[in-house]
Amino acid sequence: MIRLGIIGYGNLGRGVEMNAAKASDMELVAVFTRRDPATVKLHDASIPVVSVNEVADWTDKIDVMILCGGSATDLPKQTPEYAKLFNVVDSFDTHARIPEHFANVDASASAAGKVAVISCGWDPGMFSLARVYGNAVLPNGKDYTFWGKGVSQGHSDAVRRIAGVKDARQYTIPVDAALEAVRSGKNPELTTRDKHTREVFVVAEEGADKAAIENEIKTMPNYFDEYNTTVHFISEEEMKANHSSLAHGGFVFRTGTTGWENENQHVIEYSLKLDSNPEFTTSVLLAVARAAYKMNQRGEKGCRTILDIAPADLSQYSREELRAHML
Amino acid sequence: MIRLGIIGYGNLGRGVEMNAAKASDMELVAVFTRRDPATVKLHDASIPVVSVNEVADWTDKIDVMILCGGSATDLPKQTPEYAKLFNVVDSFDTHARIPEHFANVDASASAAGKVAVISCGWDPGMFSLARVYGNAVLPNGKDYTFWGKGVSQGHSDAVRRIAGVKDARQYTIPVDAALEAVRSGKNPELTTRDKHTREVFVVAEEGADKAAIENEIKTMPNYFDEYNTTVHFISEEEMKANHSSLAHGGFVFRTGTTGWENENQHVIEYSLKLDSNPEFTTSVLLAVARAAYKMNQRGEKGCRTILDIAPADLSQYSREELRAHML
Repeated sequence: MIRLGIIGYGNLGRGVEMNAAKASDMELVAVFTRRDPATVKLHDASIPVVSVNEVADWTDKIDVMILCGGSATDLPKQTPEYAKLFNVVDSFDTHARIPEHFANVDASASAAGKVAVISCGWDPGMFSLARVYGNAVLPNGKDYTFWGKGVSQGHSDAVRRIAGVKDARQYTIPVDAALEAVRSGKNPELTTRDKHTREVFVVAEEGADKAAIENEIKTMPNYFDEYNTTVHFISEEEMKANHSSLAHGGFVFRTGTTGWENENQHVIEYSLKLDSNPEFTTSVLLAVARAAYKMNQRGEKGCRTILDIAPADLSQYSREELRAHML
Repeated sequence: MIRLGIIGYGNLGRGVEMNAAKASDMELVAVFTRRDPATVKLHDASIPVVSVNEVADWTDKIDVMILCGGSATDLPKQTPEYAKLFNVVDSFDTHARIPEHFANVDASASAAGKVAVISCGWDPGMFSLARVYGNAVLPNGKDYTFWGKGVSQGHSDAVRRIAGVKDARQYTIPVDAALEAVRSGKNPELTTRDKHTREVFVVAEEGADKAAIENEIKTMPNYFDEYNTTVHFISEEEMKANHSSLAHGGFVFRTGTTGWENENQHVIEYSLKLDSNPEFTTSVLLAVARAAYKMNQRGEKGCRTILDIAPADLSQYSREELRAHML
């Protein structure tokens, strides 16, 4: 059994607990928290909740620590810190800062002889794999990534910061016509506006100027101004009843040609339809934790991403079983 | 530049020549043949065609040899033989015999200090990856693989062996309703008949009993008896004009659930639409040749499959570039 720990018990931490309980080759040993441990209630009350200040006492009891904090402020500090003590896995998803995060984590993990795998989930993660495989096998081609339908936390937060907005939820929705054009092999040139629409549900403060709010949303630079955006004002009850889904998904395409005259067209499509974004993300984290454990057992150390991991290492099956039944 | 050789110049060999000519980091150094080299005409006449009997003279001039023979009789002999001299890549696709082939090739390659990668293409190959990743991240679920629309060589050959049949082409076609049921997350139980139909185009000998041929096709054990099969009799001209396409493709699904009560459903779909089956297969072979070269440069040896290869090793980009731009 691979012994797992969790640091941080939010949506991701809960997903790790659930997935670990169902995994045949892993067990959750402890959950570490910055809160008062007495206030954190796990689904399985028999698993200890421990103050993160005591984490160094657990180095012999945990094979892989899964870091379930946020990318904005938690992981840039936590992953390099805990890679000094444990093999670690995180879901750092600020794409632009990955090279810097990688360098920091690599320094810690290499010095400590641990394996750290960063940026695991579905994007970055499974979608990154689809992009890299697609580019490797179709070097002459184009990439398309579509996200949704699903809630964007960043865009929802941006709307919540507008004066007069009490609550908001923003859905990113891929445009069907764009998906179909790509799928048909037309290699279209698509603008930001062509690929996705944005739909916003807003609970306004009493007496707020709804027209002003709608205008501020639709013209917000970077977040909304380059998109066709629809805004709906709803009640708090409606928000609670209809907009608590954690569903998400998306599509990665690589389209390209082969042939002396580029006469042959090929379309590779990878898609995800997920009822629960955090539960699927933690499913990926667990498979990666298994790989991190195997790699460290073989003597590897340092920072890795899912692009550095042989698929067989993610699997619950042996290489012999994979060759016999899945190849 | 990675220096490639080819053994066998049929559809696959031609695809390797074309793809290698377009690759920025590879060059085709020579083509080896069992035929009289003077009778083999390459697209690029400046590349030498050499008798396979002289292949041992080229060990210092070729980094990776791509074996383009057939799985029935060529590769079981050739891959273990040439893995004694070169890093090799093959597209061995007889799923049931992969463990035996792996063992034979591993013995040769390990002893010689070479890397040999077997069973690369799209199935086995890219579809195997989709199955293994899908199972790793959704352990509680079901697998579905659909092939087509495309010509099955084995089924076409089986029809050609029937008395009175001059030529035949058999298309494997996935059933749309089955695809949709899987895609919607219904986790259907599908029989062989539910998943694919078979469509056969036959050129009959003059005076042949067409009703008898049609009956023999539709009742042929293993090949057709478990499928809904349509048979069309056509002229030789029509066969040549309309049935020379090398298009193929297919779909791999992993559907499964997470949640304490399995309340969350997830659907992963990977699909390929290929205008040219052999050209796409050789695109995969070239990416794998790149990985074989990198792995051998790092001191690895022995037999591998695409399941043992870190995605970054298949890529034309450095790991730094991949992290910065594709992760």
